[in-house]
Amino acid sequence: MPATFALISMSLDGYIAGPNDGRDYGLGEGGERLHEWFMNSAGMVDERDAAILAEVRNRAGAVLLGNHMFECGDEPWGDENPWGLPAFVVTHHPREDRIKSDGIPFHFVTDGLEAALVQARAAAGDKDLWVAGGANLIQQLVALGLLDELVMSLVPVLLGDGRPLFSPGSVPTTELVPDQVVASPRVTHLRYRFSTQGES
Amino acid sequence: MPATFALISMSLDGYIAGPNDGRDYGLGEGGERLHEWFMNSAGMVDERDAAILAEVRNRAGAVLLGNHMFECGDEPWGDENPWGLPAFVVTHHPREDRIKSDGIPFHFVTDGLEAALVQARAAAGDKDLWVAGGANLIQQLVALGLLDELVMSLVPVLLGDGRPLFSPGSVPTTELVPDQVVASPRVTHLRYRFSTQGES
Repeated sequence: MPATFALISMSLDGYIAGPNDGRDYGLGEGGERLHEWFMNSAGMVDERDAAILAEVRNRAGAVLLGNHMFECGDEPWGDENPWGLPAFVVTHHPREDRIKSDGIPFHFVTDGLEAALVQARAAAGDKDLWVAGGANLIQQLVALGLLDELVMSLVPVLLGDGRPLFSPGSVPTTELVPDQVVASPRVTHLRYRFSTQGES
Repeated sequence: MPATFALISMSLDGYIAGPNDGRDYGLGEGGERLHEWFMNSAGMVDERDAAILAEVRNRAGAVLLGNHMFECGDEPWGDENPWGLPAFVVTHHPREDRIKSDGIPFHFVTDGLEAALVQARAAAGDKDLWVAGGANLIQQLVALGLLDELVMSLVPVLLGDGRPLFSPGSVPTTELVPDQVVASPRVTHLRYRFSTQGES
């Protein structure tokens, strides 16, 4: 059965963006540091990190993301859907599909997270569903027991402040099962399965 | 030159203790989960985890800890100093050395963190200094650039709430260098060096 997985870059102090992230500020102050391992000005990506990305891109058939993340990314992403996959945005604001010049759509789903999940899983077909973030969406999926896997790409920096992946009270106590560790000099990819998967 | 290193068990959401930790509650609600990898009721420790502990115990000549951690641990530790090493407690409350039945002292240092560090390093001799925690002490050492290494033993659980290792604003933006990853089914030990070490 296809899985629903999240892949997210995080600092050692648990932030997925710097302070003041948002529509006009992208990943916030210092937040771009978290994405250097796959987007750096010199254009070089470590082969172990590239293999992680290739594996993820190969297994995914669609992407699910939250509205805040869409708004942070829309302009920086320019003319392309950064995943090259149909993307479903969970939002309260109804709007037309956004189709960038690559022809790959962003759909906006306004009837709730579970409805968006159904649509996105259908679009993924027999491939997996990639949850791209942000923090709130991942928290909600974890709290509802709807996430099968979490891959944290742990970046060796303390940001000091910013947007945490998990904030106090955002998720119940939840056991996970370590599944894979891939380390490069730039980032450590930690893959976990949710141990209650299939039981609920 | 001997190093100053911290080894601390942390949940995936960044907590080193559950809610309401303290003198009467030890590691707080659910916090004992974080120490199961080295203290479990069945008495079994994975050999990879045991090797990490043996390595740390072998390299360390003394221990530095904060007053809150001492107060949380004093009773649970019973008649022994849990590290088997001279321990220095950074505190505002002057008190006599506490020597448990194993004869290994806890010293209480009231003239500040840097003074405690000098005393503890002297006691460690040509061995390394083990910073046992808690969170505040580690934050202060990081902020002052006085920590050489951080080992996070990442436990595969989301606690949901508790005492964070790093809270917002507790440390400045700080680069680290990944140094070692050791993974067992129970915990992933991530060792980092502080990249500015020696430059300040």
